[in-house]
Amino acid sequence: MTTQLSQAKDGIITPQMEQVAEYEGISPEKIKQLVAQGKVVIPYNKHRNFYAVGIGENLKTKVNANIGASNLKNLEEEEIEKLDIATKFGADAVMDLSTGGDLDEIRKTIIKNSPVMVGTVPIYELATKYEVEDFDSDKLYEVIEKQAQQGVDFVTVHCGITKQTMPFLQNSQRISGVVSRGGSLLVKYILNTGKENPLYEQYDRLLDICFEHDVTLSLGDGFRPGSINDANDSPQIAELMILGELAQRAREAGVQVMIEGPGHVPIDQIEASVKMQKKLCQNAPFYVLGPIVTDIAPGYDHITSAIGGALASSYGVDFLCYVTPAEHLRLPDKDDVREGVIASKIAAHAGDIVKGVKGAKAWDDKMSKARKNLDWPAMYKLALDPEKAEHYKENSEAASDDVCTMCGKLCAVRTDNERTKPNHCKY
Amino acid sequence: MTTQLSQAKDGIITPQMEQVAEYEGISPEKIKQLVAQGKVVIPYNKHRNFYAVGIGENLKTKVNANIGASNLKNLEEEEIEKLDIATKFGADAVMDLSTGGDLDEIRKTIIKNSPVMVGTVPIYELATKYEVEDFDSDKLYEVIEKQAQQGVDFVTVHCGITKQTMPFLQNSQRISGVVSRGGSLLVKYILNTGKENPLYEQYDRLLDICFEHDVTLSLGDGFRPGSINDANDSPQIAELMILGELAQRAREAGVQVMIEGPGHVPIDQIEASVKMQKKLCQNAPFYVLGPIVTDIAPGYDHITSAIGGALASSYGVDFLCYVTPAEHLRLPDKDDVREGVIASKIAAHAGDIVKGVKGAKAWDDKMSKARKNLDWPAMYKLALDPEKAEHYKENSEAASDDVCTMCGKLCAVRTDNERTKPNHCKY
Repeated sequence: MTTQLSQAKDGIITPQMEQVAEYEGISPEKIKQLVAQGKVVIPYNKHRNFYAVGIGENLKTKVNANIGASNLKNLEEEEIEKLDIATKFGADAVMDLSTGGDLDEIRKTIIKNSPVMVGTVPIYELATKYEVEDFDSDKLYEVIEKQAQQGVDFVTVHCGITKQTMPFLQNSQRISGVVSRGGSLLVKYILNTGKENPLYEQYDRLLDICFEHDVTLSLGDGFRPGSINDANDSPQIAELMILGELAQRAREAGVQVMIEGPGHVPIDQIEASVKMQKKLCQNAPFYVLGPIVTDIAPGYDHITSAIGGALASSYGVDFLCYVTPAEHLRLPDKDDVREGVIASKIAAHAGDIVKGVKGAKAWDDKMSKARKNLDWPAMYKLALDPEKAEHYKENSEAASDDVCTMCGKLCAVRTDNERTKPNHCKY
Repeated sequence: MTTQLSQAKDGIITPQMEQVAEYEGISPEKIKQLVAQGKVVIPYNKHRNFYAVGIGENLKTKVNANIGASNLKNLEEEEIEKLDIATKFGADAVMDLSTGGDLDEIRKTIIKNSPVMVGTVPIYELATKYEVEDFDSDKLYEVIEKQAQQGVDFVTVHCGITKQTMPFLQNSQRISGVVSRGGSLLVKYILNTGKENPLYEQYDRLLDICFEHDVTLSLGDGFRPGSINDANDSPQIAELMILGELAQRAREAGVQVMIEGPGHVPIDQIEASVKMQKKLCQNAPFYVLGPIVTDIAPGYDHITSAIGGALASSYGVDFLCYVTPAEHLRLPDKDDVREGVIASKIAAHAGDIVKGVKGAKAWDDKMSKARKNLDWPAMYKLALDPEKAEHYKENSEAASDDVCTMCGKLCAVRTDNERTKPNHCKY
């Protein structure tokens, strides 16, 4: 039995490392080294077959789209459509967060149809079957093992909610308490049963399953802040410190691991949040939800999170979980998924330019040159969403013009081209 | 003859300063002091009558919406509808950038109907009437004086494009050359006539007109970068240094003045851009267009600019010019205006939280408490766009539920309220 990590440690370059190297324009040797150091993970369950993607240092920032039904809305077909839209617009991963409908059926269908890595939060399945007080470790690990066998590439597990970290929550002055679904269930479990979190207590059992199937651990932040007021507070940091210890144990066991992060964070605390994670977790890849930078814009949280995600990416975050306009209001529909993925892709790329990811700025420069040349087909081709860009211009009154309706004949580019391109000037 | 600035210097608190004080929750005395120091401007033409708003240090970051027709699209009615939408969603200012249709008629109608300050770029009117080579100072100042008499509250004038700064442009390695409409016209004027920019050469004439009507100067950045590659380059900084000198002369003449800024700026250069402006322009209010942080997302530049605008606001920018999804593609329509204003309002507020603007974080905290209480009506009321927030929730399958369709019965807030609100728990 091997994992990407165990093989990297043994000096082996896997086919998946080759794919990652090709996509990133980095040598396979370097990728192997980054995986061996735990700075890059390649979530790739042994039962899957797709074009592998890496997450971590030096690589393009990746984007995850959450899909999946809830008990109030569960149409399997719709979730598959969301999968298609998410990956069409560039999602590098999807998480099936279903908590309603036939969970096994939805999960299997998503795994079968997904061209990208698939993640889950196994405790959700448990919560749909049992009362919280009846969770026990056998039921829990049975679910995790089943999902690993089904081909799940990474699992979110809230291992840092423990008897040791709980007092920090209970003594805190948080406005929002616990806003993580998995987190809130485990808090309730510990309080109502007096028992330790089985994801923490039997962590080695988790490591065994993940090693066997090469499932990447995504250590969840059950105490993530749910309001900007609560950002970077003691429950969050206490949990992060535990996650750092657990990440170390995972690596030693040959299990790939990344760390999840917030959430709601004001602009001036994002850098600290990222730097702290990188330090406490020995540069494990960092996977954040948003972060959204203000609480007042429900209906537009793809934008509040694009702001936070871009900053986070620029400071070293490796993986962004999208947030859609539906956040805080309803399960996202297909349009929300598209808006969410694109906003996150923008954030990821804006950060990549700044942290020097290979090829990132070159893309912008190509677009800028196309603009200077008033070369509309080239602009559409280079656009993150070519369809929308083309639709905007080609359905306007200037459809057949070299300039657009914004400035018309006063187009600054056209005017300035008389100066900079006198021999190519067609006006 | 007086201006807000001249009166502030004389120790007079005007009715407009009282209004600004009321809106910001700051004492009138303090507002007067900030205006006298030139750190705050209150664009308010003597021929207007509306609720005055201030722009600058310590105040809420303000948002401007550009409206106005071009020669390729000019329907006066549509521009008035855009005015209504922009101000409904919270624009603190509009600029009429019309370059097509009956310019005087559109301008007068916008001024008459606008509940907020109105700005223009007078050189556009000149450009619709004359060839660039035929611009002369008398024609130019006649237009500026007429617009001042019509009630324009602030004017963008590209005074920093001069024979002194031109060589920095000509020697630069820019990809995008000049992307400012006014800038490109003045560059052409200087190159083709060999004459100096009349906005610079006869700056005192400009100051006289602005003093007489209390028109605020918005010193334009004709050399602003049009691609992230060109950000903070020598043409831009050379122009900014001239604007700093001119700002000082305006203040001495009792004329209110703010400074315009970019444009296209990668995330890691925004702070420098803001700090440099504040230093070189003696803390004059800073008014930026965007900035957008990547060039690759035409169709979504309200998002790329929300990222840059939020960061800029957090570092001290005072006034954001919106960017809409139509940027680089077409004249914005009504939907684009709405999207653009809201994205900029989000950016402004996200920055305000961080720079400690009075009441900013308190708004977020109220929203977070409403969320904790699952108090949907309170959430809608507190939302930046109450209609959209309510529509999302109330048209979903969970319309009558206390939780939403995202998590359904697994709602983390509901679960956690059993812990934090045991006596108020209704489940």
